[in-house]
Amino acid sequence: MATAQKLATVVNGVAVDEIFSTIDAIKQTPAIAKFKFKIENQWEGGGQNSSTVNTFYGACQDQTRKRPFVLLADEPQVLLGKDAAANPVEYLLHALASCLTTSMVYHAAARGIRIEEVQSTLEGDIDLQGFLKLDPKVRNGYQGIRVSFKIKADVPDEQLQELVQLGPAHSPVFDSLTKGVPVSVTADRM
Amino acid sequence: MATAQKLATVVNGVAVDEIFSTIDAIKQTPAIAKFKFKIENQWEGGGQNSSTVNTFYGACQDQTRKRPFVLLADEPQVLLGKDAAANPVEYLLHALASCLTTSMVYHAAARGIRIEEVQSTLEGDIDLQGFLKLDPKVRNGYQGIRVSFKIKADVPDEQLQELVQLGPAHSPVFDSLTKGVPVSVTADRM
Repeated sequence: MATAQKLATVVNGVAVDEIFSTIDAIKQTPAIAKFKFKIENQWEGGGQNSSTVNTFYGACQDQTRKRPFVLLADEPQVLLGKDAAANPVEYLLHALASCLTTSMVYHAAARGIRIEEVQSTLEGDIDLQGFLKLDPKVRNGYQGIRVSFKIKADVPDEQLQELVQLGPAHSPVFDSLTKGVPVSVTADRM
Repeated sequence: MATAQKLATVVNGVAVDEIFSTIDAIKQTPAIAKFKFKIENQWEGGGQNSSTVNTFYGACQDQTRKRPFVLLADEPQVLLGKDAAANPVEYLLHALASCLTTSMVYHAAARGIRIEEVQSTLEGDIDLQGFLKLDPKVRNGYQGIRVSFKIKADVPDEQLQELVQLGPAHSPVFDSLTKGVPVSVTADRM
């Protein structure tokens, strides 16, 4: 019986009981909700660099991964790199896709909505005249990003659209990217 | 002599002559500067999903990588994941670090400023009360991000600070993240 009950609380691969116990814990102690995420990046020459992701702070304590994750970056040859990894603006699209998807999946799980499959294609426009300061009217960054989801779930049409809106409504990366974030940059000698 | 000349035009691992020939080409044909970056993401259950990075459009043609790059995402256990990869908001920090670094390195190369080493640490604050809609005053995304560079370069102090500002002044991810980007989200059934 205990096993049957535990299986029943996993929806979309997410332990729903843990979502609700986390919410209850945060309601009692809001400091649990305060997270600090961190990476360390090392330049490797030209357009190549790598970030190490390992520790973060959350649930009122320092947290360490089972193992660190290393993320490489490079530029394709047409952008004067060696094409050894995805480039920074492609990583930004991955951050957005993964956050929209996870936000939708978790919030759907909390509502008991079962999802079978999710795919998304993201495309964004950048005019390098901004980066190269060749035209002051052209921004450096993305002019716009289009996210196109394909979803398999046994829900009526109106609930499918409701489901998709769970991502933009909750995603930390969507919020950061659409509304902007204050970023401070400082430097010292090595 | 041809070899010596070619070696002399590589600064910070970047072919400076190619930067200037690219700028000249864009001045003549601005359409060369218009890029479209693209990823495809696939949900793999719970907090896990992966993006494939392969093609993009730029320099007036479709471009394909030598091989596709696959980027995984997951959440740590305290965020109900399996801790198999960096999470979306950590990927956002990697996108920012790598773009600030590459933007600084490329623009320094164009100015003939040689850089020996670059490291950066990025840290960002998120309060999960936003994601969980427990407090309407708390945003879903990053409340702030701090970027701290350490740089080794044989330049006077004032040029070191000028060097660091090349990143924020040109980086497409910095611009996208600090000023915001319009993002459209649509969905269809699979």
